Amino acid sequence: MTGDKAKRRRSGGHRGNRRGAGAAIDQPPWRIPVNTDRPIEPLDEDGIAAIHGAAMHILEEIGIEFLNADARAVMKRAGCTITGTNVRMGRDFVMEMVARAPSQFTITPRNPAREVTVGGKHLLFVNVSSPPNYWDLEVGKVPGTRTQCMDLLKLTQFFNCIHLSAGYPVEPVDVHPSIRHLDVVHDKLLITDKVVHAYSLGAERVEDVIEMVRIAGGLSHDEFEAKPHIYTNINSTSPLKHDDLMLDGFMRMVKRGQAVMVSPFTLAGAMAPVTMAGAVAQSIAEGLCVIAMAQFMRPGAPCIFGTFTSNVDMRSGAPAFGTPEYMRATQMTGQMMRFYGLPMRASGVCTANVPDAQAAWETCASLWSAVQSRTNVVVHAAGWLEGGLIASPEKFVMDCEVLQQIQRYFEPEITATDTGALALDAIAEVGSSGHFFGAEHTQARYQDAFYSPFLSDWSNYEAWDLKGAEWTVERAHRIYKDIVNSFEPPPMAPAIREELAAFVARRKAEGGAPTDF
Amino acid sequence: MTGDKAKRRRSGGHRGNRRGAGAAIDQPPWRIPVNTDRPIEPLDEDGIAAIHGAAMHILEEIGIEFLNADARAVMKRAGCTITGTNVRMGRDFVMEMVARAPSQFTITPRNPAREVTVGGKHLLFVNVSSPPNYWDLEVGKVPGTRTQCMDLLKLTQFFNCIHLSAGYPVEPVDVHPSIRHLDVVHDKLLITDKVVHAYSLGAERVEDVIEMVRIAGGLSHDEFEAKPHIYTNINSTSPLKHDDLMLDGFMRMVKRGQAVMVSPFTLAGAMAPVTMAGAVAQSIAEGLCVIAMAQFMRPGAPCIFGTFTSNVDMRSGAPAFGTPEYMRATQMTGQMMRFYGLPMRASGVCTANVPDAQAAWETCASLWSAVQSRTNVVVHAAGWLEGGLIASPEKFVMDCEVLQQIQRYFEPEITATDTGALALDAIAEVGSSGHFFGAEHTQARYQDAFYSPFLSDWSNYEAWDLKGAEWTVERAHRIYKDIVNSFEPPPMAPAIREELAAFVARRKAEGGAPTDF
Repeated sequence: MTGDKAKRRRSGGHRGNRRGAGAAIDQPPWRIPVNTDRPIEPLDEDGIAAIHGAAMHILEEIGIEFLNADARAVMKRAGCTITGTNVRMGRDFVMEMVARAPSQFTITPRNPAREVTVGGKHLLFVNVSSPPNYWDLEVGKVPGTRTQCMDLLKLTQFFNCIHLSAGYPVEPVDVHPSIRHLDVVHDKLLITDKVVHAYSLGAERVEDVIEMVRIAGGLSHDEFEAKPHIYTNINSTSPLKHDDLMLDGFMRMVKRGQAVMVSPFTLAGAMAPVTMAGAVAQSIAEGLCVIAMAQFMRPGAPCIFGTFTSNVDMRSGAPAFGTPEYMRATQMTGQMMRFYGLPMRASGVCTANVPDAQAAWETCASLWSAVQSRTNVVVHAAGWLEGGLIASPEKFVMDCEVLQQIQRYFEPEITATDTGALALDAIAEVGSSGHFFGAEHTQARYQDAFYSPFLSDWSNYEAWDLKGAEWTVERAHRIYKDIVNSFEPPPMAPAIREELAAFVARRKAEGGAPTDF
Repeated sequence: MTGDKAKRRRSGGHRGNRRGAGAAIDQPPWRIPVNTDRPIEPLDEDGIAAIHGAAMHILEEIGIEFLNADARAVMKRAGCTITGTNVRMGRDFVMEMVARAPSQFTITPRNPAREVTVGGKHLLFVNVSSPPNYWDLEVGKVPGTRTQCMDLLKLTQFFNCIHLSAGYPVEPVDVHPSIRHLDVVHDKLLITDKVVHAYSLGAERVEDVIEMVRIAGGLSHDEFEAKPHIYTNINSTSPLKHDDLMLDGFMRMVKRGQAVMVSPFTLAGAMAPVTMAGAVAQSIAEGLCVIAMAQFMRPGAPCIFGTFTSNVDMRSGAPAFGTPEYMRATQMTGQMMRFYGLPMRASGVCTANVPDAQAAWETCASLWSAVQSRTNVVVHAAGWLEGGLIASPEKFVMDCEVLQQIQRYFEPEITATDTGALALDAIAEVGSSGHFFGAEHTQARYQDAFYSPFLSDWSNYEAWDLKGAEWTVERAHRIYKDIVNSFEPPPMAPAIREELAAFVARRKAEGGAPTDF
């Protein structure tokens, strides 16, 4: 850090200028928001029963294709009806298995201080994962690279409102697929100390990533398997199908006592019915069947149901996100997950191609519907564009401003009604012709009374104009550069660092993972 | 309309291209959304009692300044304690008066088909009102003009998601203040057929506008006064003060049986306590005292309580809108208004200076908090920027896209769970390897299954890039121009048109209203 930069950083303290060029921005402390709002519940009791009944009908009468032979063997042992690759199961079995799933559990990354609790009223935010492309103001839309991936990992680590570092924030297509998991998870474990996840893309990848996370945590195999330290997410191949590699990775994680998430991508009008109740029922059937398998394999296995029900644009057939139908589907799924007692995942998503106003209102719609549905884990909460085809650092920074405001929204002091909060003495003191700024009541509280933004510009038009008239995306670009350029990685013990590097070197020498998928 | 334009308009039907250059956009039908969501309620019973107690304490012990002598005389007759300009009143009196207020009533504009119901679960959206400045992509920020005001009135009329045409959407500073109300309300009554409002800025203005609305409605004086046809909004001069002209206008409206809205501008940390409970309690005291006066003057007078509680930016002292604290204050006020049985007004507001992503997320926060608080009337729902100092046509168009999505969000078919919605036959038909687009279930429903945007671009990046890579604000600019250029005013009977013009001409010849305020 140059002296000039250091000076500016020192001047950028908690009450300093957080927005000047080159100034560092402050971070609210690491904490997990607790969603105290009563959920929005569009379904009545009959509606819940109807969707449950439809999901059970699908599992009993229509069945789900399990394209993995080991999974079918497990389901056969469980007493399900196997016909070729089709698996059908009774509602009693499903409900008995689902009842075994914990409603709340922890996942502990290499830094135990970053442990997260999944379930209950906890609200966790996860960075964008898996877009093949990258967009920023300088380069436009380009295929993702390892450098861009590392930059986005730095943002993931920097922002305390991002609680998990999930998949690759952008797919680095400049790294060969056989070793991509080794390089990127290595990067990730060095750059972040938050919970990571493994893609279920074949045995070698899952096992390599599990091993790297175990090494990074300094854990024995027994210690690692004693509780969740990592998770995977699988998507069904809607309609009504689970593919081979996904099921393989899912089962490996279950056997090792790690967390599993299943997120059916039920796009209403394409891979699911055009009606939201049908799309939600189908997603529940697709999700519950593998959660039931997990509970049969290992009672109490930590499972998360992921909703990814949205609708297509009926003019083009392309997916649309952050729509009114998406919001309602998320709320409906929230009701169903409380009915089943399962933690829930949703997403921070939009259809917009660039981080403009449309991106903001679509992302807000998805984030607020996550809040309204009492979602526990919000994946893609920062950085997603173009229906998941683009990861953007400016969008990442913008989303973090919104996420921080959601965190602030849940701080109970805002709605406190104790004597101090009612402020009757201050009201009497100021009377009808004074101003509260000078009141002792204000002076004692003003530093932390309100959310203080790092990206939003609250100056008036003329002051904003004088500073350069930067629109949100331009300010976000500058902030993203500042964060990346001044980034300092979290500590890692040298011995662990060496062991990790040696593992990666050995596995690369062995050729990494097969790429014939 | 040129032939070319007409052709393009014809091709822009309900399923046509709504986004091509020059294409007209379709409008969903005129309808009033019904907010079926259970409100978000951060206060428990004790919290409600605490804020109510604080508001009553303010009214009983501290009092409110009434700077209008007639108003003080009314309050004296009502048994209140008058000390100079200070008015104190007992909680029993306040609660007895407030209990007289209707929880629901109608306002009927010149076109009875545009009648609106205020209260209950009805959700009404109103255009931006009163900014002194205008901003668009071409001219930047400039003082408002009559032409810009007319353009914004055309947008107000065009969009069916805007239910009332309230104040001047921008203040036309090129029209002399003595006749501004005559010219602008004349423009408004010709351009729109929705509910209008009168500024409480002196007897002449209020009486002129009432007379113009009566003429435009083709009503006798008795017919006019038989039910609400117009409303006024007054703001307290916080802290704890109501000014002379505002009270005068408010009382004139009450006497004529018209609707009144009182919106204390309680900015926490400036004109109200830095704590939200204190700011809300103060706003309730400031609002209820004049609602009590209205009910004493005319039992059953149609009243609306307006929340305008937000917080300052503690770095600058300037107001901030769409903040987490704003959201919670709006929700808390919603709980209090259900406690008092009063219809509620809130706003669609932001701090941002230009219609970018910040503007969108701040506006979404305010709009969703209006929904969450079961607000009945959302003022400034479209077109507001810079904390109310700027009206923008692009922002207006952008906000209408969000408002239409909120309307769609409340359509009950989205969450229906009847047999058709559960779609089990379609799920069985499509099976595990098909696609729902070709299913009969989809084909029968796809045209109206999902919200169809007019401004959001849902094409992929490459298609969007080929079309010109327009960001939201650029598309909004084009749409605003299209609407204004192809605008056709609603019909008005020639005799009424002449009577209105003659009234305006006479009053202008008389010099309009005094401008010594």
